[in-house]
Amino acid sequence: MEQIIPFNKPFLTGKETSYIQDAVASGKISGNGKYTKLCHSFFESKYGFKKCLLTTSCTDALEMAAILINIQPGDEVIMPSYTFVSTANAFVLRGANIIFADSMNGNPNLDAESIEALITPKTKAIVPVHYAGIACDMDTIMALSSKYNLYVVEDAAQAIDSYYIGNDGVKKPLGGIGHLSAFSFHETKNIISGEGGMLVVNDAIFAQRAEIIWEKGTNRSAFFRGEVDKYGWVDVGSSFLPSEIVAAFLWAQLEHLEEIQNKRKAIWNQYWEGLQPLKEKGILKLPIIPNYATNNAHMFYVVCNSLEQRTALIEGLKNENIHAVFHYLSLHKSPFYEYKHDGRELSQSDFYSDTLVRLPMYYELQENDVKQIIQLF
Amino acid sequence: MEQIIPFNKPFLTGKETSYIQDAVASGKISGNGKYTKLCHSFFESKYGFKKCLLTTSCTDALEMAAILINIQPGDEVIMPSYTFVSTANAFVLRGANIIFADSMNGNPNLDAESIEALITPKTKAIVPVHYAGIACDMDTIMALSSKYNLYVVEDAAQAIDSYYIGNDGVKKPLGGIGHLSAFSFHETKNIISGEGGMLVVNDAIFAQRAEIIWEKGTNRSAFFRGEVDKYGWVDVGSSFLPSEIVAAFLWAQLEHLEEIQNKRKAIWNQYWEGLQPLKEKGILKLPIIPNYATNNAHMFYVVCNSLEQRTALIEGLKNENIHAVFHYLSLHKSPFYEYKHDGRELSQSDFYSDTLVRLPMYYELQENDVKQIIQLF
Repeated sequence: MEQIIPFNKPFLTGKETSYIQDAVASGKISGNGKYTKLCHSFFESKYGFKKCLLTTSCTDALEMAAILINIQPGDEVIMPSYTFVSTANAFVLRGANIIFADSMNGNPNLDAESIEALITPKTKAIVPVHYAGIACDMDTIMALSSKYNLYVVEDAAQAIDSYYIGNDGVKKPLGGIGHLSAFSFHETKNIISGEGGMLVVNDAIFAQRAEIIWEKGTNRSAFFRGEVDKYGWVDVGSSFLPSEIVAAFLWAQLEHLEEIQNKRKAIWNQYWEGLQPLKEKGILKLPIIPNYATNNAHMFYVVCNSLEQRTALIEGLKNENIHAVFHYLSLHKSPFYEYKHDGRELSQSDFYSDTLVRLPMYYELQENDVKQIIQLF
Repeated sequence: MEQIIPFNKPFLTGKETSYIQDAVASGKISGNGKYTKLCHSFFESKYGFKKCLLTTSCTDALEMAAILINIQPGDEVIMPSYTFVSTANAFVLRGANIIFADSMNGNPNLDAESIEALITPKTKAIVPVHYAGIACDMDTIMALSSKYNLYVVEDAAQAIDSYYIGNDGVKKPLGGIGHLSAFSFHETKNIISGEGGMLVVNDAIFAQRAEIIWEKGTNRSAFFRGEVDKYGWVDVGSSFLPSEIVAAFLWAQLEHLEEIQNKRKAIWNQYWEGLQPLKEKGILKLPIIPNYATNNAHMFYVVCNSLEQRTALIEGLKNENIHAVFHYLSLHKSPFYEYKHDGRELSQSDFYSDTLVRLPMYYELQENDVKQIIQLF
């Protein structure tokens, strides 16, 4: 049997199970223990995020954000149609109406220039999604936020260790620009814990309430710091915190962040260089990384010229035991939302739904594997 | 230094980390893999639950239930005031008004006889909480459910492997009686996974939608069974499913359920017998297990005659390095809800808030430890 090259393969740094054993031996495996704190500190010190809170998923981090900005029924939230369902669901669960923006021509990220026309007196927030870990046009988005007094929640699910370079020349980590942001550690991400996520609080006005909502609506954390003399139910909330088992796993990954990133970037560059000739012949398009963005090598995708071409490509690779996969279907055309959408055509989003395909990308992918994949195009 | 007897100590059966390693080696550590399915099958076959879905917490399972019964702003939900904040938050997050019921004289469970007077045209659901794993009066509650067309969501957080014996003489597992129910595998429970929970669907009308909500509002599960030809966004939902890392841990526990239960019951019985003389002297009250209920030895609690007596008891034990802890504060008196509560006095709930204390209870607690604790009373 020929070797199968999967789309994704979770990478283990080697310490995951021993840290889990350590957590278990400590007698503390529910949330907010030693490993959770190590992970929080790592992100806060490496990226300068004001406050980090691990969650059971990126979805849950987005739900925390929706609660924190106090989304009420009828509020409008602007986000790309070309995104994962959780980006939208987190706000729909609070009663929001989703106003879908189109992607750019040449880049699946939402077209920041198109946002202003979508803003109404009901608009409460903009949710840019940094697709493939490549930054959205954050200067434009933050300027709209200031002009119209809107919250910005970055969906940084794919954006760990990636940056935005502003007009002022300052390089800012993605997830550290909006008022709040959400990361994912799902098994398909660069850094993983199976399922898992993190809320980042950049605007300090949310810090205290974020901790309360995270702790099921109680002021338990303040109590254990000795700031209040008893703890009780003070707000809405949920059980957003993951167990120490999950946090211990994540910590083992974070210790190897640099090594993982270097390896992924090498794979990404090999694809990029190897596929240039096809790009030049107009057979397919490659990712465009704007001057304001960096590349965290979360994903290597190509964009075909048509659905038919993509179907044939996926099929052809599959016949050689190589698993390449398409990605989102435009949310504004979904069975759940097509009747709620305002009818605007979002042709770029539909285009990426039809033509984008993601190639295998994981730590243990070999140079020869990538060479083989490129040759099959 | 004298030995400390903690309130709780997570017990490991020995296979947890090897199952986690197996999950990781399989390359599938996100949710709904082999170990998740093993856990679902275990509960479905052992207890006859129609459909089980692991969640990241009992809180999340309750939130799924609130979505499934379609709680709308202004709907009323009846539950005990003497419960964990999550019982209430799950419904508050959907806009419900919580109508708190009192506990019984002699039993912290909600007084089923008091429920009918609380029912209005806005009432949508009753949420009985099986405190300490001891059943509520489910015949009375299910009769009210039929009479007034109300949903029953069992908060079975503490109630694994415990039963209710109906007027018809049939023994039914807790969590298998209401339309929906929620279990917890938090580290303080009989069977643990650090953080973790499970939704049980007993009324088949919820089965299909439960799966969709669990999978972030998509019909992904139906797609992988070949029932639909593509999957997309069809409903609200969240990322309720735990990683395989968590499920693998839980499976190692479930394999030893009987052994764990037997050990806990022996400890419980030792407390029960050892403290009888104090009960007979009126110094404290012991748990009352109604004829319709069984005991799953989740918790051993005693009820003091006053707050002062309890404070002295906890202090006295603490001085001997024994950690005994009080439990809930009445939710109707919480900072978050006292102004929303309708003003009814719930004196039994307040009584347990002031007087109930939980004694150390865990698998590795030794017979001599229990003897020592009893002697200190």
